[in-house]
Amino acid sequence: MVKKHIAILGATGSIGTQVLDVVRAQADRFEVAVLTAATNTRLLIEQALEFRPRAVVIADDTKYGEVKAALSHMPTQVLAGVAALEDVVQDDEIDLVVSALVGSVGLRPTVAAITAGKDIALANKETLVVAGQLVMELVQKHGVRLLPVDSEHSAIFQCMVGEQHNPIEKIYLTASGGPFRGRSLEYLATVGCEAALQHPNWVMGAKITIDSATLMNKGLEVIEAKWLFGLQTRQIDVIVHPQSIIHSLVQFRDGSIKAQLGLPDMKLPIQYALTHPERVPNKLRRFNFADFPELTFEKPDADTFRNLALAYRALEIGGNMPCILNAANEVVVAAFLRGEVGFLQMSDIIEETMGRVTPIAVPTMDDCMETDGLSRDVATDLVAKFKKVYHIAK
Amino acid sequence: MVKKHIAILGATGSIGTQVLDVVRAQADRFEVAVLTAATNTRLLIEQALEFRPRAVVIADDTKYGEVKAALSHMPTQVLAGVAALEDVVQDDEIDLVVSALVGSVGLRPTVAAITAGKDIALANKETLVVAGQLVMELVQKHGVRLLPVDSEHSAIFQCMVGEQHNPIEKIYLTASGGPFRGRSLEYLATVGCEAALQHPNWVMGAKITIDSATLMNKGLEVIEAKWLFGLQTRQIDVIVHPQSIIHSLVQFRDGSIKAQLGLPDMKLPIQYALTHPERVPNKLRRFNFADFPELTFEKPDADTFRNLALAYRALEIGGNMPCILNAANEVVVAAFLRGEVGFLQMSDIIEETMGRVTPIAVPTMDDCMETDGLSRDVATDLVAKFKKVYHIAK
Repeated sequence: MVKKHIAILGATGSIGTQVLDVVRAQADRFEVAVLTAATNTRLLIEQALEFRPRAVVIADDTKYGEVKAALSHMPTQVLAGVAALEDVVQDDEIDLVVSALVGSVGLRPTVAAITAGKDIALANKETLVVAGQLVMELVQKHGVRLLPVDSEHSAIFQCMVGEQHNPIEKIYLTASGGPFRGRSLEYLATVGCEAALQHPNWVMGAKITIDSATLMNKGLEVIEAKWLFGLQTRQIDVIVHPQSIIHSLVQFRDGSIKAQLGLPDMKLPIQYALTHPERVPNKLRRFNFADFPELTFEKPDADTFRNLALAYRALEIGGNMPCILNAANEVVVAAFLRGEVGFLQMSDIIEETMGRVTPIAVPTMDDCMETDGLSRDVATDLVAKFKKVYHIAK
Repeated sequence: MVKKHIAILGATGSIGTQVLDVVRAQADRFEVAVLTAATNTRLLIEQALEFRPRAVVIADDTKYGEVKAALSHMPTQVLAGVAALEDVVQDDEIDLVVSALVGSVGLRPTVAAITAGKDIALANKETLVVAGQLVMELVQKHGVRLLPVDSEHSAIFQCMVGEQHNPIEKIYLTASGGPFRGRSLEYLATVGCEAALQHPNWVMGAKITIDSATLMNKGLEVIEAKWLFGLQTRQIDVIVHPQSIIHSLVQFRDGSIKAQLGLPDMKLPIQYALTHPERVPNKLRRFNFADFPELTFEKPDADTFRNLALAYRALEIGGNMPCILNAANEVVVAAFLRGEVGFLQMSDIIEETMGRVTPIAVPTMDDCMETDGLSRDVATDLVAKFKKVYHIAK
């Protein structure tokens, strides 16, 4: 079997480690060519020793020495700094780049990989949230495959296999509802990050887990789905499905609906993105109806979980507004994790940032980068302001 | 648009009339070339006047004069008798034959159509139950498409689009459970055909509605699925899903499950069989999660509803055993509808017939026809015997 050579951007994160679990289980199919990490040198070194990639990148360049020393006995090239992420994905040997960075920092290396003609397994939804139109144009231009890793988008993608000629009437993105489903605004005003980090179904990184609790994750997914599947905003619906078994659904123009289901385990959509269009056997635990005699569905509460409504609004406005939303969200989630702002203030700051940063109807890639930076500055200022209020209130 | 010319075998039945509903709604896509009916001259004449087919067949040849007279002003050819069904499907002009006859009588004309190179929209599941292996060999040999109309098989077929290269791990056929779901043997001993004809979700003909109440319909579908999708018996599971929204599911070898969903309306799978691989817009009512906040699942009760277990047993034995099962079932359902045998006696007679008719491991088509006749005779004798007991008991 000819092995697929893969680069993993964000190898030490939740998605990255699960990508390596899949690679380990399918060792005859994949060769790890590149591993990158933001700061986690211990795990990056361990991974490099096991998978012996051609190159590793540690984005935090103060840690270069540590990684270099640990791998000095190997032929692995050791690079440091964020800019190196863009270079390393372009190597001729690489077939597929797994984009599993967290946040808008994923945009540049993903674009570099697309431009170099690499297929992309996309876990970094911010790439499409920040610059969806531009990225999709590049995907088209360079004829690469953009394979979604998010379970919801993987579900839609799987349902679309063999149906590309059939127009979509609408899609339903399913949402677990997160740990605070059914809770009131009064309750949410009191919650801290420990509670928000307890996701009922999925084991994920901290950022996406908070986004799940606020429903911003679903909002970002709505934006991602628009670009991935070429939809109008009104064609994208969100339905809360607390069991997280149906991962999403497509309704075609004849009214027929297709859904993809399974236990909530990211290794399945990861494996599918790596092996598409083949499905390969694995030892993942199988779904059993006996364990899920009831699958339930309810409308999301967008009055209480305002981030979802804000994401729809950003998508409706279009241009750089989703980029502003996303940048503000990254800032407030980090602040929430540090205990600097409350749960409900996150939406307040995002909304205020959306009103303060100059909208651009048809942004260039540079406009997107600039908007990202400006929005972070505005949101950071707002966090500082809100922080005082929050701590006085506490 | 080039119109597809279709022949409808069983035009006046529940499926046949819905096929014509679909044709009426998609008049630019289809031309009705042939209509056939068993005995319902009034409706056949009405349909012929509306759709102006090239030919009609009334299987009951005593009614030839009535049909001929009513259509004498039209160029439509009027034929009579069961043998004419086999001739009429072979016309060069016909692209697709909808096989919507009820019972094993559907086998011969369906085989004639396949042999003449026509695509088949198959609603007559008995064709595959009676002679699955032989029919699939003919489908292969003549390179025709066999498009399932049953909602469950249509669901699997839709889920398999674009996935033909990916092995199936298992399928789940969903079952409503029928009107007597959850009932005890004691209760079932008392039910008559009025109660059995009240299906909770689907509007269908009398034969299939009784089969749904006994779960024989699901048993026949298991057998049909084996042949349509090339499965082993152990790969086919039945799950009771009272809402009839998920029409069936496929689990691939990577553990990923795909399902097809929608409101229970046969017009959707019928339309898909007629337009595959295109999906065309229609005005059918759309599914809405608000109306179905809970989808539930449970194991079928094969101890109480013994027909399902009998069907699995027939499939395991193989050869002509499914044919014996089916013939006996046709006889007992007719007897039940006439009030001659009780609900539970249907299983008893089928089981006894399966024990009495000589098994043939590798039957020819003639063997299948002969087995069908013999099994009917045996089952008819048993009905006469049970009838006395039943009426004494009543």
